[in-house]
Amino acid sequence: MKKINIGLIGFGNVGSGVVKILRERKASLKSKIGSEINIKKIADKDIASKRNVSIDKGLLTKDVREVILDPHIDVVVELIGGIHPAKEFIIEALKNGKNIITANKALLAECGKELFAIADDRGKSIYFEASVGAGIPIIKSLREGLVANKFHSIFGIVNGTSNYILSEMSRNNCTFAEALRQAQAKGFAEKDPALDIAGVDSAHKLIILAYLCFGRFVSLDDIFVEGISRISLSDINYAKELGFEIKLLAIAQKEKDELEVRVHPTLIPKKHLLSSVESMFNAIYVSSDLAGELLFYGPGAGQLSAASAVVSDLVDLAQDIRAGLFRSNLNIIADSSIVKLRKIDETHSRYYIRFMAKDQPGVLAKISGILAKFGISIASVTQKERKKAKHVPIVMIIHDAREKDLRAALAMITRLNVIGENSVAIRMEEV
Amino acid sequence: MKKINIGLIGFGNVGSGVVKILRERKASLKSKIGSEINIKKIADKDIASKRNVSIDKGLLTKDVREVILDPHIDVVVELIGGIHPAKEFIIEALKNGKNIITANKALLAECGKELFAIADDRGKSIYFEASVGAGIPIIKSLREGLVANKFHSIFGIVNGTSNYILSEMSRNNCTFAEALRQAQAKGFAEKDPALDIAGVDSAHKLIILAYLCFGRFVSLDDIFVEGISRISLSDINYAKELGFEIKLLAIAQKEKDELEVRVHPTLIPKKHLLSSVESMFNAIYVSSDLAGELLFYGPGAGQLSAASAVVSDLVDLAQDIRAGLFRSNLNIIADSSIVKLRKIDETHSRYYIRFMAKDQPGVLAKISGILAKFGISIASVTQKERKKAKHVPIVMIIHDAREKDLRAALAMITRLNVIGENSVAIRMEEV
Repeated sequence: MKKINIGLIGFGNVGSGVVKILRERKASLKSKIGSEINIKKIADKDIASKRNVSIDKGLLTKDVREVILDPHIDVVVELIGGIHPAKEFIIEALKNGKNIITANKALLAECGKELFAIADDRGKSIYFEASVGAGIPIIKSLREGLVANKFHSIFGIVNGTSNYILSEMSRNNCTFAEALRQAQAKGFAEKDPALDIAGVDSAHKLIILAYLCFGRFVSLDDIFVEGISRISLSDINYAKELGFEIKLLAIAQKEKDELEVRVHPTLIPKKHLLSSVESMFNAIYVSSDLAGELLFYGPGAGQLSAASAVVSDLVDLAQDIRAGLFRSNLNIIADSSIVKLRKIDETHSRYYIRFMAKDQPGVLAKISGILAKFGISIASVTQKERKKAKHVPIVMIIHDAREKDLRAALAMITRLNVIGENSVAIRMEEV
Repeated sequence: MKKINIGLIGFGNVGSGVVKILRERKASLKSKIGSEINIKKIADKDIASKRNVSIDKGLLTKDVREVILDPHIDVVVELIGGIHPAKEFIIEALKNGKNIITANKALLAECGKELFAIADDRGKSIYFEASVGAGIPIIKSLREGLVANKFHSIFGIVNGTSNYILSEMSRNNCTFAEALRQAQAKGFAEKDPALDIAGVDSAHKLIILAYLCFGRFVSLDDIFVEGISRISLSDINYAKELGFEIKLLAIAQKEKDELEVRVHPTLIPKKHLLSSVESMFNAIYVSSDLAGELLFYGPGAGQLSAASAVVSDLVDLAQDIRAGLFRSNLNIIADSSIVKLRKIDETHSRYYIRFMAKDQPGVLAKISGILAKFGISIASVTQKERKKAKHVPIVMIIHDAREKDLRAALAMITRLNVIGENSVAIRMEEV
């Protein structure tokens, strides 16, 4: 039986994990596929550093074209990340008749539609299981396992770094800065963690998930994105007292004939499974019309976890190749009941709000008066510890309010001279 | 493009769900598969009763052979359940060149190996996503998504009825009998709920999961099976006070070079996700060597949920048929590091134990003396409410002990004249 020849672009952490798995599981993979997966070439800028897997030096090259142009290579596995030059490499590989496996969420989020169209044009497949949730088979589950379903919403904890920081703060009572330092020390956060903690990585993954669920590619600009850097330890603790955990959620949700796509810190009731997702773990909560409410949970990062997903793509692709099939990514039918994206201003939610107020009579009356003016009603209010500080925290839960009204009310309240700086409003989800 | 013709055996709850989905999602399924799925024939003993889907009367037949022998039918979907005559129908269909989709866990558990061999012999596929966890794509995830992984263990809440009863008891402080009555009233339990509450249904599903994870078909006799009918409300409440929920778990776990397969009520720490799985929901917690610890959660039953799984199998099978592929169920390599099954006597666990003891001096000394004799050490002990009852409950958590030793110690303790009837021992899992 014909070997399936593959070429790797990127021989870093995940790339060497893939090589390790293909070597160690050679026999069992071969028996499952019916053909051998053969690593023909590995391109990387750095071919000198030692990896944790030994490899024939002859396979390594600094010239990516030796992978892309090799007529014997069937599959190109792109693991360098980022938009450029990954995009150009993939396009050239497709044009040279290669199938593609990629873990590149940023690229798929920003150029997926274009790449999928080029692939379909050439009758080649693009597989991308490792792009969301590492080894959790969420892409396969949405595309294949739930193929008959329509979706109502998807709520994802899809950034391990942010979740690690928030759950460390909650479990160990440490500040954001301390938790971030710790995450960096353990290798759970990059030196420059901006993409993760600002929510952009979550937004990239949300674009992919929303495409699979609703059949439309939203652009990054269409997504409301708020990261976790302004979440304070006190808010985490106040939320806890009220029975909630704060998580960074990536949300795509159908509301009547509109689709909401947003990434932001969210209060989740402790009884909900998503509130128990800790440390580097990811979880995707899917609401579907036939299979109901589902949760997919697992480590959101890690060399072997991501490599496990890449190898599962390889096995699928090898079977496609043997059968002469190609799998289109463009046959996901757009949910025709969605007519437009809902702007964040128009979304509704319950909110957790914290004001820092002077401890004097009449403050609460002023605040609640302004909220009432905007039609916002209060579900609960607590004035926290009465210290000799200049301002004391007032914590409120408010009933369902429109974002636009809430923002206007907050702006007005913040201008009161009895209110200090740093008012906080965090959305709540029943999920 | 050639139509894929299917025949249904069984037009009950799930069967009519499948028909409904195939009709309502016709266009989107066709665009995904590239061919139309056409229902050619539906066999059922009862072709007179009204279903919640309208259907051309001409499709219905009482004669199952009209499905099995129809040369134009590519796929036979078996949804009647039970061993006989489902087994004979499937074998005859395979011999007549049909591919099979089934939701029949009892049949697969007891005769899976035989059926898979016949299918391979004929180059036909058997798909069975709906057999475990209804619409949760757990079969696909284990077979395909985690294809490169070796497994350490699988812990499943796989029987919705049992989980409904246990979680009702825990949430609403009701007795087993009350919870069962309620489950029956809501249609969540059969009139004769024996298979569910005695753990046999869970054991059937465990056989399927263990095969996918470890490559061996264990027989029902090899599985230690204990149901939930002896779980009392007091034990649920005592467990809760100690920070645990009681769940019926189906467990397959590698311990050194042995495999443990068992179904029994289990104390699970409240911080673990499995403890939060309530009502009719199922969840499967998988420990794998590459993708790590994963959880798959969703409704464990329901017409459309199970039908969603059947239709996903249909889509996969339709693609196989178009490509001329068949998918073997025999290419799962047995984990060669497992040399035998571990007998329940030899398994180790922490335990929750409750004795009913006379409230007099020296009782605890006697109990702990006997435990010590068997090398069993106590982690915690609480004597519960001191009422005027003849016996008071003594609740203990004991450290890791061998089942055989624990049973011997319990037998000896039960013979003490200070100890009443109904001592209870429930395993604990850290998971």
